[in-house]
Amino acid sequence: MERLEHRACCGGWQDVYRHDSSVLNCTMNFAVYLPPQAAQQKLPVLYWLSGLTCSEQNFITKAGAQRYAAEHGVILVVPDTSPRGDAVADADAYDLGKGAGFYLNATQAPWDRHYRMYDYVVEELPALVEAHFPVTAARAISGHSMGGHGALVIALKNPGRYRSVSAFAPIVAPSRVPWGEKAFTAYLGEDRAAWQAYDASELIGAAQERLPLLIDQGDADEFLDDQLKPQLLQAAADAAVYPLTLRLQRGYDHSYYFIASFIGEHIAHHARALHT
Amino acid sequence: MERLEHRACCGGWQDVYRHDSSVLNCTMNFAVYLPPQAAQQKLPVLYWLSGLTCSEQNFITKAGAQRYAAEHGVILVVPDTSPRGDAVADADAYDLGKGAGFYLNATQAPWDRHYRMYDYVVEELPALVEAHFPVTAARAISGHSMGGHGALVIALKNPGRYRSVSAFAPIVAPSRVPWGEKAFTAYLGEDRAAWQAYDASELIGAAQERLPLLIDQGDADEFLDDQLKPQLLQAAADAAVYPLTLRLQRGYDHSYYFIASFIGEHIAHHARALHT
Repeated sequence: MERLEHRACCGGWQDVYRHDSSVLNCTMNFAVYLPPQAAQQKLPVLYWLSGLTCSEQNFITKAGAQRYAAEHGVILVVPDTSPRGDAVADADAYDLGKGAGFYLNATQAPWDRHYRMYDYVVEELPALVEAHFPVTAARAISGHSMGGHGALVIALKNPGRYRSVSAFAPIVAPSRVPWGEKAFTAYLGEDRAAWQAYDASELIGAAQERLPLLIDQGDADEFLDDQLKPQLLQAAADAAVYPLTLRLQRGYDHSYYFIASFIGEHIAHHARALHT
Repeated sequence: MERLEHRACCGGWQDVYRHDSSVLNCTMNFAVYLPPQAAQQKLPVLYWLSGLTCSEQNFITKAGAQRYAAEHGVILVVPDTSPRGDAVADADAYDLGKGAGFYLNATQAPWDRHYRMYDYVVEELPALVEAHFPVTAARAISGHSMGGHGALVIALKNPGRYRSVSAFAPIVAPSRVPWGEKAFTAYLGEDRAAWQAYDASELIGAAQERLPLLIDQGDADEFLDDQLKPQLLQAAADAAVYPLTLRLQRGYDHSYYFIASFIGEHIAHHARALHT
């Protein structure tokens, strides 16, 4: 593991590391924010999953999350959004291939050689983090858009692994919207039965635990009606009597200005679960 | 004036406008953050001047300032760092020409046709802002690096015009460091007497008012020893009995992580002066 960046921020350190991922079969970057308390004690971890086109940089430079992580004593871990490198398959599109891993394990060629972001986020990255940083076993997970989809799916599929989950403008029903249909067809094949394993609105009905779940969605989000459709998750949660807090935020769009406006409340949501 | 961006942020609006500048003889962008209170009342304005290579975008996307502006009821106005467009003279360097206006009025060809950022920031932009937005006559000014130089010089040269001034890692003595020597030679000519009018460490001795002046400087800033030299301003302020609060912040570098870490304290510093 090589440290690429080390920058003082809000009393702690915003670092970026590079490592060889055996799951993804390539070299990956991830970011870690260590709040000031990490110099003295082990702290819980919030994993943040970013959206389409992002790397590990977007969240750490634009969300303003470090101040809240410092306030609440939470370590932030931010992976990239897909495998990377010249050997990795790609598409000439922003919503497939590099920058668009969709936090799943691909089963279709040519994607199946590298695109295993689900295993990377669930298994390899936490093992790496827990071996090298002053962290407790308490984990939470959040994300934006495609990363909100990833956070919901990963939390719902791994009972006992996370204390809390949240999302900003998540793709809640990828099987039923263009972004998800395109990605799932490529990565998972034509059989829609295989898609259900990565669709939060399908998974929530069979969830084995009730995690504190907070979702913020801007009502001026340019992707709201075509790609996000939070009402599909709300209906599935209602049917399953799953306690979902879904907040429609008036005037907000899909940008990092929206994330920056509410990240403090999300980190407080996770801190309540992580510190109890 | 054309509005290019309009994004909900921290209860208010982060906007970007384009207008034709008669002072600069080109089309310019600037950003305005209107906190929620601006819907009901006139508010004071903090002008932010950015550093080398920046546009109006860097501060509004990376500093996390909007939340503090909303907390304190202060409007933020953020100009670009130089004239722009194909007709504007440029140099094949990051520290001269476009993105490097140094907040002065150039006297040397070819720069004198467009490079009048001093008049733009002091006169034209405030007149535009005061004609179009719900602002009071209370102004403050701050900035980073080259923009910290701009904020100090503009405040010191215009008694009565600003209530407070602050800077992050400012170029305090441009006449005596490589960035300033290169820019001033190009924009102002070889005669060093002309440079004194844009050098904070020269101007502070003759300052006609004592403004609240706060400077933060990271002690791990990669430009500290060669380009910034805050001790030169400290010595001049001491000699002039000018009340300067200069804080050396341990471990911080020159990046926006540094700005994001202390912008809340700077906005509080300005709010105290602006709201009294």
